[in-house]
Amino acid sequence: MNNRKLHDTMAVFDGLIVSKWSHAVFEDMKLGGVTAANCTCAVWEGFRDTMENIAQWHDWFNNFDDLLVPIKRVSDIRQAKIDKKVGIVLGFQNTSPIEDRLDFLSLFKNLGVGVIQLTYNTQNLVGSGCYESNDSGLSDFGRDAIDEMNRLGILIDLSHVGSQTSKDAIHHSKVPVCYSHACPKVLRDHPRNKTDEELRVIAKHGGFVGVTMFPPFLPKGADSSLDDYLDAIEHVIKVIGEDQVGIGTDMTQDYDKTFFDWITHDKGTGRKLIDFGEIKNPPGFQRLGEFPNLTAAMIKRGWTEDRIRKIMGENWLHILANVWGD
Amino acid sequence: MNNRKLHDTMAVFDGLIVSKWSHAVFEDMKLGGVTAANCTCAVWEGFRDTMENIAQWHDWFNNFDDLLVPIKRVSDIRQAKIDKKVGIVLGFQNTSPIEDRLDFLSLFKNLGVGVIQLTYNTQNLVGSGCYESNDSGLSDFGRDAIDEMNRLGILIDLSHVGSQTSKDAIHHSKVPVCYSHACPKVLRDHPRNKTDEELRVIAKHGGFVGVTMFPPFLPKGADSSLDDYLDAIEHVIKVIGEDQVGIGTDMTQDYDKTFFDWITHDKGTGRKLIDFGEIKNPPGFQRLGEFPNLTAAMIKRGWTEDRIRKIMGENWLHILANVWGD
Repeated sequence: MNNRKLHDTMAVFDGLIVSKWSHAVFEDMKLGGVTAANCTCAVWEGFRDTMENIAQWHDWFNNFDDLLVPIKRVSDIRQAKIDKKVGIVLGFQNTSPIEDRLDFLSLFKNLGVGVIQLTYNTQNLVGSGCYESNDSGLSDFGRDAIDEMNRLGILIDLSHVGSQTSKDAIHHSKVPVCYSHACPKVLRDHPRNKTDEELRVIAKHGGFVGVTMFPPFLPKGADSSLDDYLDAIEHVIKVIGEDQVGIGTDMTQDYDKTFFDWITHDKGTGRKLIDFGEIKNPPGFQRLGEFPNLTAAMIKRGWTEDRIRKIMGENWLHILANVWGD
Repeated sequence: MNNRKLHDTMAVFDGLIVSKWSHAVFEDMKLGGVTAANCTCAVWEGFRDTMENIAQWHDWFNNFDDLLVPIKRVSDIRQAKIDKKVGIVLGFQNTSPIEDRLDFLSLFKNLGVGVIQLTYNTQNLVGSGCYESNDSGLSDFGRDAIDEMNRLGILIDLSHVGSQTSKDAIHHSKVPVCYSHACPKVLRDHPRNKTDEELRVIAKHGGFVGVTMFPPFLPKGADSSLDDYLDAIEHVIKVIGEDQVGIGTDMTQDYDKTFFDWITHDKGTGRKLIDFGEIKNPPGFQRLGEFPNLTAAMIKRGWTEDRIRKIMGENWLHILANVWGD
C-alpha cells in the first residue's frame, strides 16, 4: 500500500488543534485527511465568551455542513470517515468556562465539549498549572469537578497542568485521563514536557499520551524535523508501549503574534509566563494539509501498518470510547 | 372504558406548566398521568440566569432519572409513556435568555429548549407584549429570531405576545406557531385572551391553541368550574375545529405571592402590569395530580374517546412533530 493510500484508509485523530479557525483551516484539515480532532474553543475565556465561541461553532456546523460534523460519540467519528467529513470534538484548555458552577459542565457536555483541561498554565479554581511557581495540587472544587466530568463522560486533559495537580488528578479520577499534547522531558527539558515517571504513572492508570509537535517542546526546538517528532513518539512508546499513544499536533495554524502574546500572559493580560521564541513547525508538516507526510515518515521509518494505524487514530478512538461510554 | 383507564392509556401533554419545580411537583405530575409537558425555565431571566436554571434541570434529570426524562423529539414522548416517566420539554416564556445573540438559540435548542415565547407581557428586542400600551409589531431582530427558530425547529409561542406582533409573527414564520396557553376573549374580556378572529388566523396558518386554566382568564375568573374550562375549550373547537386544540394548564403549583409579584412587574422589578386578584384553580383541578378529573369531566360531557385523546395530547404531539421535524 502506498503512503497516501494508507493515510486515506485510516481514522486519523488529532488530539489537539488550536488553530485560528476558518473555512480555510477546515478545508486544510480535509485536505490533510483529518477524520476528527479535539478543537480548542476556550483557553482563558469565561462562561459567556465560551458560549459565544460555541455558538460560532454551531454556526459553522450549519453553514459548512458539507465539510464539518460535530462529534459526540466515537461512532460519529467512524461515520465522519465514511462521509468524508471533518469531525469536530470541542475542547477546552481550561476550566475557566465553568466559572464557579460545577453544574455548567453538563451544559458544555451537551453542547459537544468532549475534552476539558483542568488548568491552563497557572492556578485556577481547580488546581495549578505548569508555569506556576508553586503547585499545591488539586483543590476540593477540583475534586468535585473531576467527579462531575467522570459522571458526564468528559475526557480530562492534563497537558498544561502542574505536576502535583496532575498526579492528584490521575489518582482521583475514576476514569482514565490524558496528556493530549505533550513531549518527553528527557528529550527536551521544558516545564511543559513530562518525565518518564509521569508518562508511566498516567499510563499505569489507563491514561493516554498525545505527542505534541509544538516546536518549543520538540527535541531540537524550532530546528526539529519530522524525524525528531517521531523520535519523541518512539520514546513515549518505549516508556509506555504502543497502545496508549497518539498524535496531538497543537497546530497553531494562521495565528500571529497577538495570539501568542495572549496565551503566554496569565489569563491573557497578566504577567508574562514564558517566551517561546520562534514558532516554526517541522518542514513537511507546517500546515494541517500536510498530515499525510507524517504517515509517509512513519512508513519510511519502518513502522508496521498496525502501529501506524494505532498511533494515527485508533488508540485515540479507544480511549475516547472508554471515557465517553461509546 | 372507565375514566381512569382511558386517562392512563392516553399520551397526556400539557402545553404549559410554570410551577415551582420540585420533586413533589414531579411526583404530582406522575400521579396525574402527565406524559410530558412544556415546562417553563425562563420568564424574565437573561442568558446566565437561564443557563443556571437549565443546569438545575440537568441536575434533576440526573438525580430523578427514575421519574423524569428530557424530551427532544416526539418519539421521546412516546417512550416516556412506555417507561411510565414524566417527559420534560424545556420552554421559555420570553426571548430574554438569548439577550442580543441570535446564535444563542442553537445553544438552547441543543440543551432541550423546544418552545420559546417571543415576548413576555411587554416589549423586548423581538416585539411587543400583551400588556404594552402600544404594539408596533415584530422588530427586524424579531424576524431574524423567527427565521432561526424555524431553522432549528423551536416552536414559537405567542400567548403573552401583543396582538400586532402575534399577527406579524404568524405571517412571517414559515412553520406553524402556537398560543400554548390562552382563552377565548369572547368568553372573558382580558388582554391575555384571544378574539375569535385571532384564533382563526393562527389556525388558518396551521397553528395551534392550548387552552389555559389560569383562573383570571377563565369565563368566570376565580369562580370558574371545570365545566367553565370545558366551555372555553369547546368554544375554541367551534371556531377552529378539534384538530389544532389542546391543553395548556398554566398551572402555578406551589408558588406564592413573591412569584406573582415578580411576574406581574415589568422585567420582574419594574412597573406593575396587572393585578390578577385571587389565583384559585377550578375545584377538582387545583393540582397536577388531579389531571385525571379533566378526562372524567370530558367523558361526563359526552365527548367521544377520539376527541378526548386528541385534546389531551395527540394534537400537541402532531404539531410538535411538525415543528421539531420528528
